Amino acid sequence: MDKVSKSVIERYIKEACEMATISVYKNSGPFGCIITDMNFKEITRGHNMVSLNKDPTAHAEIVTIRKACEILDNHELSDCILFSSCEPCPMCLSAIYWSKIKYVYYANTRDDAKIFGFDDSFIYEEVNKDIKNRSIKMKKIYSSNALDSFVMWYNKDDKKIEWTPTVDL
Amino acid sequence: MDKVSKSVIERYIKEACEMATISVYKNSGPFGCIITDMNFKEITRGHNMVSLNKDPTAHAEIVTIRKACEILDNHELSDCILFSSCEPCPMCLSAIYWSKIKYVYYANTRDDAKIFGFDDSFIYEEVNKDIKNRSIKMKKIYSSNALDSFVMWYNKDDKKIEWTPTVDL
Repeated sequence: MDKVSKSVIERYIKEACEMATISVYKNSGPFGCIITDMNFKEITRGHNMVSLNKDPTAHAEIVTIRKACEILDNHELSDCILFSSCEPCPMCLSAIYWSKIKYVYYANTRDDAKIFGFDDSFIYEEVNKDIKNRSIKMKKIYSSNALDSFVMWYNKDDKKIEWTPTVDL
Repeated sequence: MDKVSKSVIERYIKEACEMATISVYKNSGPFGCIITDMNFKEITRGHNMVSLNKDPTAHAEIVTIRKACEILDNHELSDCILFSSCEPCPMCLSAIYWSKIKYVYYANTRDDAKIFGFDDSFIYEEVNKDIKNRSIKMKKIYSSNALDSFVMWYNKDDKKIEWTPTVDL
């Protein structure tokens, strides 16, 4: 990392943390996020909106990824950098993979957040467990039409490969 | 599980799979979801909207969780059941934990989906890795204001504990 990049990254991280403070002022959770292109040009910024929007998926990173996709009119952010005030939770980390963002900078670790009661280690552990050992009850149910949509999708000539994981990393 | 519940669950799973087929007809991914209350009364249903909305977070479960929260005017779905055409990816599974849904029924497994190219095992593996071993580059950056928002939040009298993990399970 050269000196100029280091300075720009530090500035965006500071501003992501300021977004987290703005979020608290607005009576939402203390998390902020900024997404830039690979030249460090800002695309958009956002903060936690869970209680404001009554949406459990509206973490700062998800909010900002959705805004950036809307601005770029693309469901992929391959050429983007994400700056977050805090290490992403498993939901946001997975969303980062689906969006194909490849660079993530953050200020606080999940252990810093835990001190203040924001503990997502439980979810990190659960995601890694076998289905039968998870605290939520998950059960596979047989359905004769289960594979219909997959087969129909597979046979489409114009199918959109929206779901490709980030195998090109 | 009694016979009546089994029959209702099977019906909802079949309908979630039909939602997945509807999604393909609309040129989106083959995934559908239904959320009901604990008495199996439907709250809402949805399907994958990734390519339609150009939103990488718009998986069927996330779309339907967001709709259900809007309908119930609550960021928690503690007393809800989620039916999905397919086992949730790590992003959706984490969203299910954040939403506090405790019962999940699904038709296809992640291995069924993988046969048709929908492979999220890569993300399951990545979430479980140490940061330094992940394929995306993640780096903690020091910022003097990093903890400001946490401290401000912690000192609020009217703070909303939106973030509490599902410790009551």
